[in-house]
Amino acid sequence: MDNSIFFKNKKYFIKDLFPAKKFRKNILIEGVKPLLSANKKDITIFDSQKYTKDAINTKAGFCITTEKLSKFLPANVEQIIVSNVLKEIALILIKIYPDANIDYPDSSLKLIKKSLKKGIKGVNFFLGKNVKIGKGTFIGTNTIIEHDVQIGSNCIIGSNVILKNCIIGNNVSIQDGCKIGQKGFGFLPNNIKNIKFPHIGKVNINNDVEIASGCTIDRGSVDDTCIGNNTYIDNQVHIAHNVKIGSNCMIAGQVGFAGSSTIGNNVSIGGQAGISGHLNIGNNVKIGGGSGVVKDVEDNQVIMGYPAKPLRDFLKKND
Amino acid sequence: MDNSIFFKNKKYFIKDLFPAKKFRKNILIEGVKPLLSANKKDITIFDSQKYTKDAINTKAGFCITTEKLSKFLPANVEQIIVSNVLKEIALILIKIYPDANIDYPDSSLKLIKKSLKKGIKGVNFFLGKNVKIGKGTFIGTNTIIEHDVQIGSNCIIGSNVILKNCIIGNNVSIQDGCKIGQKGFGFLPNNIKNIKFPHIGKVNINNDVEIASGCTIDRGSVDDTCIGNNTYIDNQVHIAHNVKIGSNCMIAGQVGFAGSSTIGNNVSIGGQAGISGHLNIGNNVKIGGGSGVVKDVEDNQVIMGYPAKPLRDFLKKND
Amino acid sequence: MDNSIFFKNKKYFIKDLFPAKKFRKNILIEGVKPLLSANKKDITIFDSQKYTKDAINTKAGFCITTEKLSKFLPANVEQIIVSNVLKEIALILIKIYPDANIDYPDSSLKLIKKSLKKGIKGVNFFLGKNVKIGKGTFIGTNTIIEHDVQIGSNCIIGSNVILKNCIIGNNVSIQDGCKIGQKGFGFLPNNIKNIKFPHIGKVNINNDVEIASGCTIDRGSVDDTCIGNNTYIDNQVHIAHNVKIGSNCMIAGQVGFAGSSTIGNNVSIGGQAGISGHLNIGNNVKIGGGSGVVKDVEDNQVIMGYPAKPLRDFLKKND
Repeated sequence: MDNSIFFKNKKYFIKDLFPAKKFRKNILIEGVKPLLSANKKDITIFDSQKYTKDAINTKAGFCITTEKLSKFLPANVEQIIVSNVLKEIALILIKIYPDANIDYPDSSLKLIKKSLKKGIKGVNFFLGKNVKIGKGTFIGTNTIIEHDVQIGSNCIIGSNVILKNCIIGNNVSIQDGCKIGQKGFGFLPNNIKNIKFPHIGKVNINNDVEIASGCTIDRGSVDDTCIGNNTYIDNQVHIAHNVKIGSNCMIAGQVGFAGSSTIGNNVSIGGQAGISGHLNIGNNVKIGGGSGVVKDVEDNQVIMGYPAKPLRDFLKKND
Repeated sequence: MDNSIFFKNKKYFIKDLFPAKKFRKNILIEGVKPLLSANKKDITIFDSQKYTKDAINTKAGFCITTEKLSKFLPANVEQIIVSNVLKEIALILIKIYPDANIDYPDSSLKLIKKSLKKGIKGVNFFLGKNVKIGKGTFIGTNTIIEHDVQIGSNCIIGSNVILKNCIIGNNVSIQDGCKIGQKGFGFLPNNIKNIKFPHIGKVNINNDVEIASGCTIDRGSVDDTCIGNNTYIDNQVHIAHNVKIGSNCMIAGQVGFAGSSTIGNNVSIGGQAGISGHLNIGNNVKIGGGSGVVKDVEDNQVIMGYPAKPLRDFLKKND
Repeated sequence: MDNSIFFKNKKYFIKDLFPAKKFRKNILIEGVKPLLSANKKDITIFDSQKYTKDAINTKAGFCITTEKLSKFLPANVEQIIVSNVLKEIALILIKIYPDANIDYPDSSLKLIKKSLKKGIKGVNFFLGKNVKIGKGTFIGTNTIIEHDVQIGSNCIIGSNVILKNCIIGNNVSIQDGCKIGQKGFGFLPNNIKNIKFPHIGKVNINNDVEIASGCTIDRGSVDDTCIGNNTYIDNQVHIAHNVKIGSNCMIAGQVGFAGSSTIGNNVSIGGQAGISGHLNIGNNVKIGGGSGVVKDVEDNQVIMGYPAKPLRDFLKKND
């Protein structure tokens, strides 16, 4: 299981996790995964009609879902019907991954005063245990790379950068002060004390990506946060948990993405635009600066405004 | 006096501070405080009708105010009538607190290479003198905690965090790269050289708060900046001086608060919304992402837009 | 040549840079500069009618331009006519300044554990080679000042600040976590691998400027990024490459400037406003918080909205 490189998981049998439920078989659970990547030994979740297509095709052994959605699941998936899917999955995740809901600082960090060996160049940076870094990669001063992070070759990691729970490709440039892989903004509100939602996902950054100064990219909750090949991201951009951005995109300064939206390839987004959560933005879409996108956008659209609409309508309205 | 733990104050008699004014008594001034927390040995300020209710109830010995507002003050308050309250108070603050208008780096900082004692865990962080940290608290790498800061127990302070002039409760989580307690954006414009307004307030962060990566929270000018219990704040949020946020609030990414606004309890604010200065936002208010709030908002309202209006009106307008 | 203090340039004869073109003379090129600062031994660029006035007055020896624009150039400028000016100049810059398109961390940095000598005060900060710092300047902890940076006297540089490729005046205050002088967001899109546009410019910060926490100010591409005297900038402001901000301006929190805009003197900009690229904003302009400015603005205007319009029109529309 992929995520286990960052978060240790405890082993439970399904019947011990849900003692009040009945199951056809009692299996030692491997992990919690999204609908399409879960296998027979995993628990998955299905909590919105938006994901019906994935639910129909899931190969998960067990699925936490609602009465209403349960009919879409294949017959061989054992259903765990609950009224509040997110609460149930949060409590299960806390049991299986007890360290994923709080970002404890990495106590394995070691100061590297100066490195020129193995092709890694840098002055005064910090590496956690099991970090893997490719040849020809530069690491900036005061940068912190936590345990198990993987970085490809010929990357430039700037200064004062913090990398955790992430896998980074080749030829990636991450400029000063970026923070990548921290827990996202997910919790169950509770008036005495909120329940923090564990984040067992990671951040995948593909080849040839450029991320400018001061960006924050949260790791996924159950799924991963992904940045596609050759996508360029300007300063102070905020990318929330589970966001997936395609290849060859251009994201200008101070853009913000709420959680779980998917952005196609060749998308350009102007400065300070905001993308709401759980949206699908198609390929080749152009989004004007300052726009607020609150609905799905089909391929090849040019949109602008708050709420964003086709450019022609925006211009007409603002004559 | 609370603030004196962060800023040394010089002692002046009231007659030496205002030699051109007449006073009934000559008192050694203890400090400068807001209307409601000032006592007989303090100077307070009253510069806007918005604060008339506080003015009526002040127990301050001395109050800098305007001719027009002076009638609201209790009879036993000695009035210092001026034409420009902010300028007068800035000059007095510079005299009494000469170190509060510029954030000199803390020269008392010591590097802690590795700590496991007293229940504080961390690798390579910096502590100033008189810092107090509770048991079970983790401190991230490269984090800087300046003199006299107080942190409760079981807190998680991330890496590359800077804390100064602040008091933090228990079970608080502050993620990577936050900057808390720096001087706010206050000054008297002047075409040759602006006069920096001293900031003698602090930041109070209550129990069970979560503050995500890259946020900035400025300390108060005369009053404090406050974050209530169990309030959660997402990445890259900017909270200006004197802002008071209640309990159980949810503030999404890249939200910005201008100075001196008060936010009630159970308020949720969507990503990239902006709250103008000196506003009162009631309890249980919901503010849509990207909104620009420019007026006070009563309890239980749902608002959206720029300028923000009730959701129904916003949706009608954008049909 | 100014910029050569930060970027080493290779020496080429003009005929070796453009072997397919014919020139009246073969000159050893000194550098690439903007229209008005280039001299006989420099190459300049002219790619938009917006800069016709500068083109008419250029003293450059050589100019890369289009067929259409070439008629505006003085007769003694040797023209290099191309179809894509930006691509051509990018390729030439990569040849002449091979280190300017990627921000390699500075390997000359040395840790200064504690400094009190020469009037520079600080604990645990990093200086690159040839850094010049004036008397009475404080440097914050973990701050990184890369090679050849110049800082005037009586400045306050906060903690976790990164300064590179910049020249800073006297009495400047830069608060915690600012990142100044990194490469801007400029590249030639290319579906396999974008071409990064070299940034050979620097950041000039004049006297008495205040820059609050977490700001990012990119260096110029061919020109410089400039902040005028006594201008104050609040937290989390993003200033892109080549932006020029005048004197005595007030820029509130989270404002963003796209590349190459020019802002006059005495301009005030409210929080979260965005200024599009390549605009001219006049003197004494007031821009309301949250505005999106997409057109040039004349002197003395008060504007607001998205897109920004005169305040009167904005208020009428939002009655």
